[in-house]
Amino acid sequence: MKIGIVGLGLIGGSLALDLRRRGFEVLGVSRQSSTCEIAKTRGIVDQVGVSLKLLSGADIVFICTPISKIAPTLKKLIPYLSGETIVTDVGSVKMPIVQECSTLWSHFVGGHPMAGTAKQGIEAAQQDLFAGAPYVLTPTPSTPSTAVKQVEEIAHSLGSRIYYSTPEEHDGAVALISHLPVMVSASLLHTCLQERNSIVLDLAQKLASSGFRDTTRVGSGNPELGAMMARYNKGELLSSLMKYRNSLDMIIEVIETEDWDTLEQILESTKRFHAVSRRDTERVDKNAPKDGLLPGGY
Amino acid sequence: MKIGIVGLGLIGGSLALDLRRRGFEVLGVSRQSSTCEIAKTRGIVDQVGVSLKLLSGADIVFICTPISKIAPTLKKLIPYLSGETIVTDVGSVKMPIVQECSTLWSHFVGGHPMAGTAKQGIEAAQQDLFAGAPYVLTPTPSTPSTAVKQVEEIAHSLGSRIYYSTPEEHDGAVALISHLPVMVSASLLHTCLQERNSIVLDLAQKLASSGFRDTTRVGSGNPELGAMMARYNKGELLSSLMKYRNSLDMIIEVIETEDWDTLEQILESTKRFHAVSRRDTERVDKNAPKDGLLPGGY
Repeated sequence: MKIGIVGLGLIGGSLALDLRRRGFEVLGVSRQSSTCEIAKTRGIVDQVGVSLKLLSGADIVFICTPISKIAPTLKKLIPYLSGETIVTDVGSVKMPIVQECSTLWSHFVGGHPMAGTAKQGIEAAQQDLFAGAPYVLTPTPSTPSTAVKQVEEIAHSLGSRIYYSTPEEHDGAVALISHLPVMVSASLLHTCLQERNSIVLDLAQKLASSGFRDTTRVGSGNPELGAMMARYNKGELLSSLMKYRNSLDMIIEVIETEDWDTLEQILESTKRFHAVSRRDTERVDKNAPKDGLLPGGY
Repeated sequence: MKIGIVGLGLIGGSLALDLRRRGFEVLGVSRQSSTCEIAKTRGIVDQVGVSLKLLSGADIVFICTPISKIAPTLKKLIPYLSGETIVTDVGSVKMPIVQECSTLWSHFVGGHPMAGTAKQGIEAAQQDLFAGAPYVLTPTPSTPSTAVKQVEEIAHSLGSRIYYSTPEEHDGAVALISHLPVMVSASLLHTCLQERNSIVLDLAQKLASSGFRDTTRVGSGNPELGAMMARYNKGELLSSLMKYRNSLDMIIEVIETEDWDTLEQILESTKRFHAVSRRDTERVDKNAPKDGLLPGGY
């Protein structure tokens, strides 16, 4: 089977590495010839080039470009595809992508492998990046089940944990646990930046420990990706931000009214919830991003 | 020199271990005889008991109880002290403690060693807990300089990085980088808890990665300590929370108005600030708490 990959960054490059090792013939396309050179030298792909024409014989194509380029890439790709070719993507937002791409191409299957590292680009591509990590598939009622099955089998071969959801549920979930934390964390850093008492700010920076650094880590990732994620998941992110502001206001009120018993109860409930979430996710630690924003096409 | 330690938990016990190794005679007092037994068996102290009377011969006394017990402990301790005995504490809030304790005892020096582990109690006591970690001293203009010097020398012998500040500046700085992050992080967990779409919540928990876990770590620490810290640093914490809400509202507005360039600039500035903070604090990683709330008497 021939697998095409458009966009040879961290995700596309890592996918290519894994799929080639599993015996698939991998055709890679990058806009940059320097990236093609690296892909060839490192043996990441079987064939590589800057033209989408290379993918005319592919059975399935993974679009691994930034979110804003996914649908435009599909449009340019269509002239080279046979009617049965399956197209999937790795974007971290699904509603706008699935809506547009499903209309453009009936055999389109929305996907989101949630793995990454702090680094970007083909240089960062690595084997087994997706092993143990979640891989969400978001077919619509009209997506051909054979196409869905095919993408699932490939994701399964990568060792990913596969989840199905609607594009809406996916975007709501990632807003809550990925996009909202970025804004919460960035707001905390922004608060420090706004501190006008330089003695306090200087002391605060000297005293900041791993607790502060961890809470602010995801607010210090790639700014372009952060803005893009907000742009494409605006509705769900704003909805999460409003709910977050309600929770924050409630905690502020509890402190203002000195209701320490209620504050302790709230902290007890958040502690319990964190413990449950931790158990659920510890298996994916290996491939979880160690710095910056969550990658995975986002 | 005889050093008294009241409260043999993680901080008091670790202090005792280090000071005894450095040749000081360490007298420990705990309310619980079971703790005294452990301190004796592990060789953490030279002498130990449940009565403050044991400290009548001490040259300096570290009060290592929870914040709410520091001034009450000093009151009970005074009958056993000579006029020259230095008293210091390890509480993570300084204004209310220094105000009350300085009035009660002229040779009182406010202190805050900022080290800890996820564990609590004398079982968690360890050597070199304070090496490389910040140790803030908050004398007032009327604190005798000989007393301040003495506490500084002991903190120095522990290998701590010593900082001086007013109690007000200390409380402002820890509000910003320690107490505010707890509430920000707890609000994020609370937002998830409030999610009424069970399919989205279930998926969110499955997809949550280390980015979510790190952002919510300090919001899942000891609830009793969290409430106590808010209670004793209420003014500075509320001030930080108001500034934080302004930053959050600004980011929400930027997203609502789809001003993506400004959002990217904000994320660029927070990224730069985080990089600076990280350089400043990476040296203390070794002893930084690995889970839960910041300890250090707080």
